[in-house]
Amino acid sequence: MYSAPIKDIRFVFQHLINRAALQEKTGHDALSEELADAIFDEAAKFAADIIAPTNRDGDTKGAKHQDDGSVITPPGFREAYAAMGEQGWTAMDASEEYGGQNMPMAVSSFVHEMWQSANMAFALCHLLTQGQIYALEKYASSEQKAHYIPAMAEGRWTGTMNLTEPQAGSDLAAIRSMAIPEGDHYRITGQKIYITYGEHDMAENIIHLLLARTPNAPAGSKGISVFIVPKYLINADGSLGQANDITCVSIEKKLGIKGSPTAVLQYGDHGGAIGYLVGKEHQGLEIMFAMMNHARFTVGMQGLAISERAYQQAVSYAMDRRQGTPIGGEEGDTIIGHPDVLRLLASMRADIMAMRGLVGIGAAAMDMAAHDNSSEIQSRLGLLVPIIKGWLTEQSQQVTSSAVQVHGGMGFIEETGVAQHYRDARILPIYEGTTAIQANDLVFRKTIRDGGAAITSLLDDIHNDMMAIRGADADHPSGTTQALASRMMAAVETTRKVVDHLLASANSPRRGAANGHHYLMLLGVLTGGWQMVRGAAISDDMIKNEGVDKPFLETRKAMARLFITQRLPQIDALAETIITGDEAVLEIASDWLADH
Amino acid sequence: MYSAPIKDIRFVFQHLINRAALQEKTGHDALSEELADAIFDEAAKFAADIIAPTNRDGDTKGAKHQDDGSVITPPGFREAYAAMGEQGWTAMDASEEYGGQNMPMAVSSFVHEMWQSANMAFALCHLLTQGQIYALEKYASSEQKAHYIPAMAEGRWTGTMNLTEPQAGSDLAAIRSMAIPEGDHYRITGQKIYITYGEHDMAENIIHLLLARTPNAPAGSKGISVFIVPKYLINADGSLGQANDITCVSIEKKLGIKGSPTAVLQYGDHGGAIGYLVGKEHQGLEIMFAMMNHARFTVGMQGLAISERAYQQAVSYAMDRRQGTPIGGEEGDTIIGHPDVLRLLASMRADIMAMRGLVGIGAAAMDMAAHDNSSEIQSRLGLLVPIIKGWLTEQSQQVTSSAVQVHGGMGFIEETGVAQHYRDARILPIYEGTTAIQANDLVFRKTIRDGGAAITSLLDDIHNDMMAIRGADADHPSGTTQALASRMMAAVETTRKVVDHLLASANSPRRGAANGHHYLMLLGVLTGGWQMVRGAAISDDMIKNEGVDKPFLETRKAMARLFITQRLPQIDALAETIITGDEAVLEIASDWLADH
Repeated sequence: MYSAPIKDIRFVFQHLINRAALQEKTGHDALSEELADAIFDEAAKFAADIIAPTNRDGDTKGAKHQDDGSVITPPGFREAYAAMGEQGWTAMDASEEYGGQNMPMAVSSFVHEMWQSANMAFALCHLLTQGQIYALEKYASSEQKAHYIPAMAEGRWTGTMNLTEPQAGSDLAAIRSMAIPEGDHYRITGQKIYITYGEHDMAENIIHLLLARTPNAPAGSKGISVFIVPKYLINADGSLGQANDITCVSIEKKLGIKGSPTAVLQYGDHGGAIGYLVGKEHQGLEIMFAMMNHARFTVGMQGLAISERAYQQAVSYAMDRRQGTPIGGEEGDTIIGHPDVLRLLASMRADIMAMRGLVGIGAAAMDMAAHDNSSEIQSRLGLLVPIIKGWLTEQSQQVTSSAVQVHGGMGFIEETGVAQHYRDARILPIYEGTTAIQANDLVFRKTIRDGGAAITSLLDDIHNDMMAIRGADADHPSGTTQALASRMMAAVETTRKVVDHLLASANSPRRGAANGHHYLMLLGVLTGGWQMVRGAAISDDMIKNEGVDKPFLETRKAMARLFITQRLPQIDALAETIITGDEAVLEIASDWLADH
Repeated sequence: MYSAPIKDIRFVFQHLINRAALQEKTGHDALSEELADAIFDEAAKFAADIIAPTNRDGDTKGAKHQDDGSVITPPGFREAYAAMGEQGWTAMDASEEYGGQNMPMAVSSFVHEMWQSANMAFALCHLLTQGQIYALEKYASSEQKAHYIPAMAEGRWTGTMNLTEPQAGSDLAAIRSMAIPEGDHYRITGQKIYITYGEHDMAENIIHLLLARTPNAPAGSKGISVFIVPKYLINADGSLGQANDITCVSIEKKLGIKGSPTAVLQYGDHGGAIGYLVGKEHQGLEIMFAMMNHARFTVGMQGLAISERAYQQAVSYAMDRRQGTPIGGEEGDTIIGHPDVLRLLASMRADIMAMRGLVGIGAAAMDMAAHDNSSEIQSRLGLLVPIIKGWLTEQSQQVTSSAVQVHGGMGFIEETGVAQHYRDARILPIYEGTTAIQANDLVFRKTIRDGGAAITSLLDDIHNDMMAIRGADADHPSGTTQALASRMMAAVETTRKVVDHLLASANSPRRGAANGHHYLMLLGVLTGGWQMVRGAAISDDMIKNEGVDKPFLETRKAMARLFITQRLPQIDALAETIITGDEAVLEIASDWLADH
């Protein structure tokens, strides 16, 4: 079972992001504490009561492909999606003009977190739909927007992204699907794979957003265009017309997220599927880039969500299971009394708090960037996105694995359910750009291209925040928040050396690429620690007041001490590897690797 | 497909263990280079041709429990096990007196590694059988040995370990199964769970080794006795008699090793199963302890084996798949040209070489300890076993996960096969004592109990080996083996500080338990690095000769550089966490963890 972590979410929303400034800048009512609280409470109920109960069936029964090409989703999925629509949740991210609520991401991200924790395979459908709404709002014609967005906001239709082809995964330049102009539309032919919710029975219609080439388009990624290709064509009066020329050939048998149908779609076997150009021809790459921050951020948020779900199951098991008398404990104590189980669980919790802090500041940066095109705002967001996508999804591997470990032998039995989270999580560092792709983005586009300006500005901000917490005096008793800030300041200086090393190797790009993964992990720990120590300092202040939730604030402080002692030391190790280790990677001849 | 890493295995066998000294001490012919080579070559063929082809069916079809309580193993398993028996492989570890070859573990461990790489779920059956042979040789009566061992050595019968009950997993003191004396035997009642190959169709008979209590036995672990409980009773002439009172109630649906039936066995529903006491009443704990080193070592070896298998699949995919032009590469280059893919694969290979080095010295220590009861030999083995079990199995999580990652989206599709290794590996840090249990053993029984004597002796040996490689002069160009040895020497000194911290906290055992996991990981990296730098130094010497495999020796050296730069820095981070971090764990109140 799942219970939304409302206290943590509120803390991040009210204290770690600059809620008031964001509300002033964007003018969104939902950013008021009262309204946001009400939204979080309702979402928590919906996630726990309506979505979470579908999670196990989603995994054990899975989505089923029928001989006629249709796909049946697991029991309960249809009803849950219908309820999302009826209660207005599917309208959250659309603009008011098209029937939406235009909710800022600083609020909606935590609602999405709850959906993803409750059932990641189910919640993917709306995540993709939301992504498409986001793209159409930005690039589609007014007519197209009016045509497609309202039904998606109502939850009657869903959206997909059709990028990948067998030879074109990370490399979109290799796309071969064709779009031949014909009157006001195009005829689409080709095969698309890994299409999440490419076919299913939860909606009346499915709107595919598809990448293809037009005749005589330039080679490579510059010749890609984006098309709307609906499953059912839409009549002038808005009613559904005939089926488009799209066949769902099969769905994949996957390691996890088995409730989510991953379709192979064949376009145009009977003359060409009808598609409509979005924006201009050859504008595909630009549109993809515009969607990228949003899509990558949401996958990072999934890393947080699946970690939270796995953590809750592990804590609940550890508070119930008896096995051996813990050292220093009493007979009958549950296994949470064993120091190593406590260490595992507390480290998971600290990781999750750090992850949620980053989701909060990332969401706020997305909202700011939508209202402010200044390079400062845009480049900060550009830096945060690969860190959030890369670090949170990699952390989710550790957290879900630790959740299995806490269960001992029971963790390996599928019926226990915790192995599902471990399997589900494994897609996260792969889709929407692997960790390596995030790392390359971080090193080359976000660090080297501007000569280190954006990263230096981030490091300065962290330094200044920590300095404000630590104060002028550098000596503080260990365990105090000031002492934690002091350790963070040292980590910032270590990171500056790493940045210098990367900038100095700008002319040897293979070196940057060999270091990228470690650099990303380093910045994940650093920015995570930043949020944890900020949270501890805020808790120090709040705890002096009456009427506050002191146990929760003490927990926040304890988790910051834990993160700084258990995680921050990785920064020294990663820095050492980056500064002394890239040569050892690059000298490897690939044929050595198969000679054993 | 699987191809045994013969070059790596030979290098470890011939150079990293003291083969000649071991042969002199034990007198085993199999320890000659020639005979061992022949054994490795034959085993490599058997693993590749006979066992490996059963691996995918084992996973996709799994073992099946029938209504009549029988269990059908996946296609090919019966035939492969029969072939193992026919070709004499099942006799490897039994003594000559009972039809075995009495092969030293320094040789047989690498044969077992090949079986485990080829199909871990399949090879578990013989691993358990071998464990039982080991126990019976040591504790059973001559009559019992003659009765049971030869048929197991021939591969006609198999063996199991029946320890766990629903309330008694890590804590054997909680065992409730009863054994009531009746003439020359006992009547056994109770339920045992997680019984690997507890029921199957690969052998004529199954010999269960079972823990139970006798009437009026002392409470807790001191009251446990060990019994032989055959599936079919054995007539005086050695032929099989009637079925014993044992029912296979069900088998578990697991995350991995699906080809291996994990049985729930019900004993004595019809009057009590007939069992025979091994050793004396209440000697169970002693027998379990005697088997423990062997069993834990072999699970560590499984960590190596599954890593090797996953690695081979990842290298093969990366050398074939084209996706994007690698930085500094040419169009048409495969993805192994991407620096991050190269980093991932090379790090996996370096980890595997370090793991195999530890399996080699661990196996040699087992052989030595079987012939030499000196406290020096025994305590070195006692130290190595939890490191090998804990570190190798935790490393196998990383290596198999990296193998999935190299495949991108294909890694998440079950048909690709790499996800199977990831799932299979997940049991390894759990069974035969979780990593936490290994860590407790390492901290309390192996480090604190003797006041740090055994660990200090190990650290001295590592220091001396590295000093001999580095020489008196401390300054060497980076990348030379001497420079690597120098870094290892610094890591040894850091480790001494960690040991001091643990010894100083001997009176606060919760502190030791909170640090144990990190201490174990630290010693894994340190001892792994020790073997890698020794290997590099040996390669430096050999490479000067004519007729050697220079590319392989260069690879060995490159992998040592990689291990020392990419992995050794973790030691500083782990030491920092141990020395400054235990307080932050122990101050957590368990009820904070569910308050979110």
